[in-house]
Amino acid sequence: MTIFDQLAQQTIELPSWAFGNSGTRFKVFAQQGVPRDPYEKIADAAQVHRYTGVAPRVSLHIPWDLVDDYDALAAHAAGLGVSIGAINSNLFQDDDYMLGSLTHPSADVRKKAIAHHLQCVDVMRATGSTDLKIWLPDGLNYPGQDSLRARQDRLADSLAEIYAALDPNHRLILEYKFFEPAFYSMDIPDWGTSLLHCLALGDRAFVVLDTGHHAPGTNIEFIVAQLLRAGRLGAFDFNSRFYADDDLMVGSADPFQLFRIMHEIVQSGALAPDSGVNFMLDQCHNIEPKIPGQIRSVMNVQEATAKALLVDADALLEAQTAGDVLGANGLVMDAYNTDVRPLLAELRESQGLDPDPIRAYKASGYAETIVAERVGGTQAGWGA
Amino acid sequence: MTIFDQLAQQTIELPSWAFGNSGTRFKVFAQQGVPRDPYEKIADAAQVHRYTGVAPRVSLHIPWDLVDDYDALAAHAAGLGVSIGAINSNLFQDDDYMLGSLTHPSADVRKKAIAHHLQCVDVMRATGSTDLKIWLPDGLNYPGQDSLRARQDRLADSLAEIYAALDPNHRLILEYKFFEPAFYSMDIPDWGTSLLHCLALGDRAFVVLDTGHHAPGTNIEFIVAQLLRAGRLGAFDFNSRFYADDDLMVGSADPFQLFRIMHEIVQSGALAPDSGVNFMLDQCHNIEPKIPGQIRSVMNVQEATAKALLVDADALLEAQTAGDVLGANGLVMDAYNTDVRPLLAELRESQGLDPDPIRAYKASGYAETIVAERVGGTQAGWGA
Amino acid sequence: MTIFDQLAQQTIELPSWAFGNSGTRFKVFAQQGVPRDPYEKIADAAQVHRYTGVAPRVSLHIPWDLVDDYDALAAHAAGLGVSIGAINSNLFQDDDYMLGSLTHPSADVRKKAIAHHLQCVDVMRATGSTDLKIWLPDGLNYPGQDSLRARQDRLADSLAEIYAALDPNHRLILEYKFFEPAFYSMDIPDWGTSLLHCLALGDRAFVVLDTGHHAPGTNIEFIVAQLLRAGRLGAFDFNSRFYADDDLMVGSADPFQLFRIMHEIVQSGALAPDSGVNFMLDQCHNIEPKIPGQIRSVMNVQEATAKALLVDADALLEAQTAGDVLGANGLVMDAYNTDVRPLLAELRESQGLDPDPIRAYKASGYAETIVAERVGGTQAGWGA
Amino acid sequence: MTIFDQLAQQTIELPSWAFGNSGTRFKVFAQQGVPRDPYEKIADAAQVHRYTGVAPRVSLHIPWDLVDDYDALAAHAAGLGVSIGAINSNLFQDDDYMLGSLTHPSADVRKKAIAHHLQCVDVMRATGSTDLKIWLPDGLNYPGQDSLRARQDRLADSLAEIYAALDPNHRLILEYKFFEPAFYSMDIPDWGTSLLHCLALGDRAFVVLDTGHHAPGTNIEFIVAQLLRAGRLGAFDFNSRFYADDDLMVGSADPFQLFRIMHEIVQSGALAPDSGVNFMLDQCHNIEPKIPGQIRSVMNVQEATAKALLVDADALLEAQTAGDVLGANGLVMDAYNTDVRPLLAELRESQGLDPDPIRAYKASGYAETIVAERVGGTQAGWGA
Repeated sequence: MTIFDQLAQQTIELPSWAFGNSGTRFKVFAQQGVPRDPYEKIADAAQVHRYTGVAPRVSLHIPWDLVDDYDALAAHAAGLGVSIGAINSNLFQDDDYMLGSLTHPSADVRKKAIAHHLQCVDVMRATGSTDLKIWLPDGLNYPGQDSLRARQDRLADSLAEIYAALDPNHRLILEYKFFEPAFYSMDIPDWGTSLLHCLALGDRAFVVLDTGHHAPGTNIEFIVAQLLRAGRLGAFDFNSRFYADDDLMVGSADPFQLFRIMHEIVQSGALAPDSGVNFMLDQCHNIEPKIPGQIRSVMNVQEATAKALLVDADALLEAQTAGDVLGANGLVMDAYNTDVRPLLAELRESQGLDPDPIRAYKASGYAETIVAERVGGTQAGWGA
Repeated sequence: MTIFDQLAQQTIELPSWAFGNSGTRFKVFAQQGVPRDPYEKIADAAQVHRYTGVAPRVSLHIPWDLVDDYDALAAHAAGLGVSIGAINSNLFQDDDYMLGSLTHPSADVRKKAIAHHLQCVDVMRATGSTDLKIWLPDGLNYPGQDSLRARQDRLADSLAEIYAALDPNHRLILEYKFFEPAFYSMDIPDWGTSLLHCLALGDRAFVVLDTGHHAPGTNIEFIVAQLLRAGRLGAFDFNSRFYADDDLMVGSADPFQLFRIMHEIVQSGALAPDSGVNFMLDQCHNIEPKIPGQIRSVMNVQEATAKALLVDADALLEAQTAGDVLGANGLVMDAYNTDVRPLLAELRESQGLDPDPIRAYKASGYAETIVAERVGGTQAGWGA
Repeated sequence: MTIFDQLAQQTIELPSWAFGNSGTRFKVFAQQGVPRDPYEKIADAAQVHRYTGVAPRVSLHIPWDLVDDYDALAAHAAGLGVSIGAINSNLFQDDDYMLGSLTHPSADVRKKAIAHHLQCVDVMRATGSTDLKIWLPDGLNYPGQDSLRARQDRLADSLAEIYAALDPNHRLILEYKFFEPAFYSMDIPDWGTSLLHCLALGDRAFVVLDTGHHAPGTNIEFIVAQLLRAGRLGAFDFNSRFYADDDLMVGSADPFQLFRIMHEIVQSGALAPDSGVNFMLDQCHNIEPKIPGQIRSVMNVQEATAKALLVDADALLEAQTAGDVLGANGLVMDAYNTDVRPLLAELRESQGLDPDPIRAYKASGYAETIVAERVGGTQAGWGA
Repeated sequence: MTIFDQLAQQTIELPSWAFGNSGTRFKVFAQQGVPRDPYEKIADAAQVHRYTGVAPRVSLHIPWDLVDDYDALAAHAAGLGVSIGAINSNLFQDDDYMLGSLTHPSADVRKKAIAHHLQCVDVMRATGSTDLKIWLPDGLNYPGQDSLRARQDRLADSLAEIYAALDPNHRLILEYKFFEPAFYSMDIPDWGTSLLHCLALGDRAFVVLDTGHHAPGTNIEFIVAQLLRAGRLGAFDFNSRFYADDDLMVGSADPFQLFRIMHEIVQSGALAPDSGVNFMLDQCHNIEPKIPGQIRSVMNVQEATAKALLVDADALLEAQTAGDVLGANGLVMDAYNTDVRPLLAELRESQGLDPDPIRAYKASGYAETIVAERVGGTQAGWGA
């Protein structure tokens, strides 16, 4: 398959919450025109797909995206050319979860957290989603606060109950995170912990790799390669970071790292639509406008992918086998240093799209329209 | 002066905001009995002083702690045995500050941020406070977003205007922070930047060292020694961290580090009340009760101080001079490994206090009283 | 069993190489009296056991500790009251290993590296050692230099060959390391990778946790708990660090962390001699004298263990179950803040030892003796 | 001046030691054809200049590059088209410096370390060098080992003596480093410390920024901007890192960071030859051949510079002033995403050079020649 064809096949899933307000613990700066409900979020997400052509799915977050009629929501999405992607559960905003949810010392709290996932599975059935995505915010702030090991046991039990409730076509995809919101220990802090639980659950449990959820200096593409080798890389949550889980636009902090990640994907053949790897964004546009922020992010993933596809695999293998350190590295750098924007412009034109998605979006007047029309109501944010 | 006398002289300043609700960007868990106004915050802070005897001052945060009548507030504090400490300005919650305050590209926004500090100076005059504390949240999320260097120039100008408005008995104390809320760069990210601005301002400008505001692995006690040598260590914001600016109880994450910091303080004679170093707490008790959280923190600082005072300075100098690595290190470890709780219990008893402040506070019934009485109204938090 | 009895059962294994010269890439500072051969290393290690009573085994490193007659070496050790512990292979000093050993692109190089381990197994048979310890220095300095994934495949094959050569009473214990000597990626960078390989190998493959081999901020005791839960914690390499793999004396950089690690050990019952966890030191005494450096390190592990044994497990469980954050943390801190040196002095006296091992060693004159006697020859170091 | 002309003016200084063998504490892998003396090192460096046209100077390291006749060495260099650059002192390889050099507790050791710099000044006079570069390896491995503050005082005194010995046309350039070879604290760990000493010394003391000498996550371009604003950025030591001071080829780990650094340089006009900023490499080619490693590094700096020169400064200022976050970032990214290799190829051709320096060097047969000719003797390394 040509590079062109491979790029044409690529899809990237957008998070509904990226279109709502977000911020830090210090302040959430509201932006004009922000959606007030899931319908408006999907409408905004559809704009990203409209101008890039590669973002046909939208992840939902429950309960933020609860609606009365999922058929209507799915039809709304379909009418805009997009569909519902992964269903994300929420374990961090209920008062009962202050000291944990799936790992809480109290069986009642764990039961409640498990029940929430059954609700999410219902949403999956209603929307046709096949991925239940769990990010576990549980953890400890102070040494001794709870037993690290007992929490693993409780977690295993809770996950097993959730997994048992899935339909045969459903996957459970399990995220890990180094720190935040807990500061002493997270209950799933690393890929190893997530993978151990997935292995215990069964064949339809996979690891989610959020590019912002690692210790400083961690080689993320190594983890990508490792999870692909184990057959357990279920999805990416793409974003970028300088320090912690900054949730900046993917490719904005370290574009070379993004390229290296896509290089591992390409080398393992995991770019193919049937690879089981869901390429999702998970970002917060705290100070930049949300729709163009998503467009730029999608373009950054495309550019990294295109560069990864340019690597001369045969020459690389030859140089690696020969122990030619500079030569092998040079082949990778040659691909990275190539300006792939013309190639992607060409791809878009071949698909009837404007070669410059940002410019086309700006020219559309959509931004002005939503600012004018979305007056009143409550803007969506992490709380809604 | 004996160790006992030196410990008796020590004072620690409490932050009013530690008694309000706090949390992460994911969730603020409300606690029962939390203060609804500055009067109740001061009442809670006074409890900490009541049982520890070493926390006689309360920092205010403007505008969170704005009241109509500061004489009344000061009298309220005095009646409870405490006084008003540093006045903290707020540059992170106004919508105009999304892209900066004292460093904002717009002169109008900078003017507004400067004017806010003149308001703070008025509060200083009304309360008798002598320290204007500035923590600058300004920074950039993306490379290129603004000029790193132009922002330093604007910052220098803004600070100069504020400094000029101080009374002769006022100090400007300037904090630095590695990251958060900005993710690509902070405008005062390190002690070097803070110190350069202080040196440019004049003799009454000093650096504030927040123990949670450094890169991973930073040797904080080195910075303490360096700022003391330069005569510019104005204050501590004590707290502790495992990863980022976790704002946990001081001494809870790395008690040995806290001891090493106090060792530098003691070695430089900066524990003396006239040293110009203000020992303040700056913490968030997200999941633990606030008043005992503060009591425990104050006790942790006391214990680290007592251990630092136990170091045999003469023997240490001798071992250091002789190049006796293990001997010198051993002397420091001997002090650290000593259990100083009996010594501090004795100190409290000599002052007519209960030797166990946590137990005494619990026995007082204050916690139950505020839960019962503080019904209705709006709980204080970072927004109020 | 009493705390006293549990402490009396504890054993710590010493590394032969800690008694030789070591340093950084900038300089190895030679020390007087350093051993010239494995016999002298064991003699020095026996001094540590003589004064602490808890260090009865010595790990060997092949080829540094190759001798002609292992019976003689074992007899020499036995005569000094110690025995041979784990056998460490060396994959970092042969010129052929510049680009890898067990993961090298060349089958010939891999074959050579595998053969080296068969030699180590022979030493195990000759000495009665049961642990083959592998630390893999392999990795890449530059992106693209070799295939991350292919190296995992080669590693799995190489390890399988080695594992197959073990006797039924042998264990393969596999270390991981975040970085160094490779800078872009290590082939076993984290516990997850080590564990995956152990799981693939079989029941007698276990993970080695070196406390200096993690990313900044990593919660090491979480990994301890996780590996114990998986039944795959084979051994510790104890040392301490501020930044990278500093190999300082264990407990010297963050004694609270060491305590938390031992707390997990105690909570899981893994202190028992039959737990399968080998507590080893792996340190470099670059600037301090080696024998007292080892004595101090052994004492630090003992003190951390004693503190961990002091935690009131019943009260802790009760506080944890009740969600009493401060109470649970307080129980752990109470144990940590206790001065356990008198308890350990008492233990030593009960065993006929001097209560102060450092003082006793100094008084013995051994240090002066080896300086006087070990004249000529080549001092042992990392190269010999 | 056009971008082309600015690139034509750029010069990069090469370190003599990059052509010798280097490694980690675990192993130095020797390479064939490595120089045996300073003459051969300069000959190799001249190869880099020959094919890139922008590397006309070579830094020397004393005592590694001591020769009997500096006139002969300078003439040798001139004959090859290059000249002598900065003179680097060495404070890390003398046995007396185990516990410090310029900061050592012993006045005798400090005197010796100061005297070494007078020797370096003599070399400066003999070679016409104007930069005395000091990297201080001094520091502590253990808390309490020596007084952090007293060491600063001793350092200030030592530096003052050295500074006083300089000729009026000499500069003292002072490097800082986060950690290594000391692990608890370095005596000049950060730019703030280096700058404080420079300010105390006088107008001809400047800070050296080594891109590998910072804590994880440090924003290096911020420091560049800050030092330029203070008029004290004397030089770069370029290299790249993933974890610690990895000394890899500059631009190989994070090419976007290198671009951002050069963006600050260009924005402040510091690319001009009279800016006082010396752009030097400081690298170790542990596993790759040294001469092409240097050529690639020089090219990486050129490419980053070319991209930085492509930023549309007027449009950027406009977007920044308007608070257009995405627009401003987009302008910077547009420059970064441009493939500048054709532009640099054109530049080389305009200078009579081969457009592809690596290919030209390979074709020259120089590598084969030195392997054949440099037989016998002792290869240069960090010790010689």
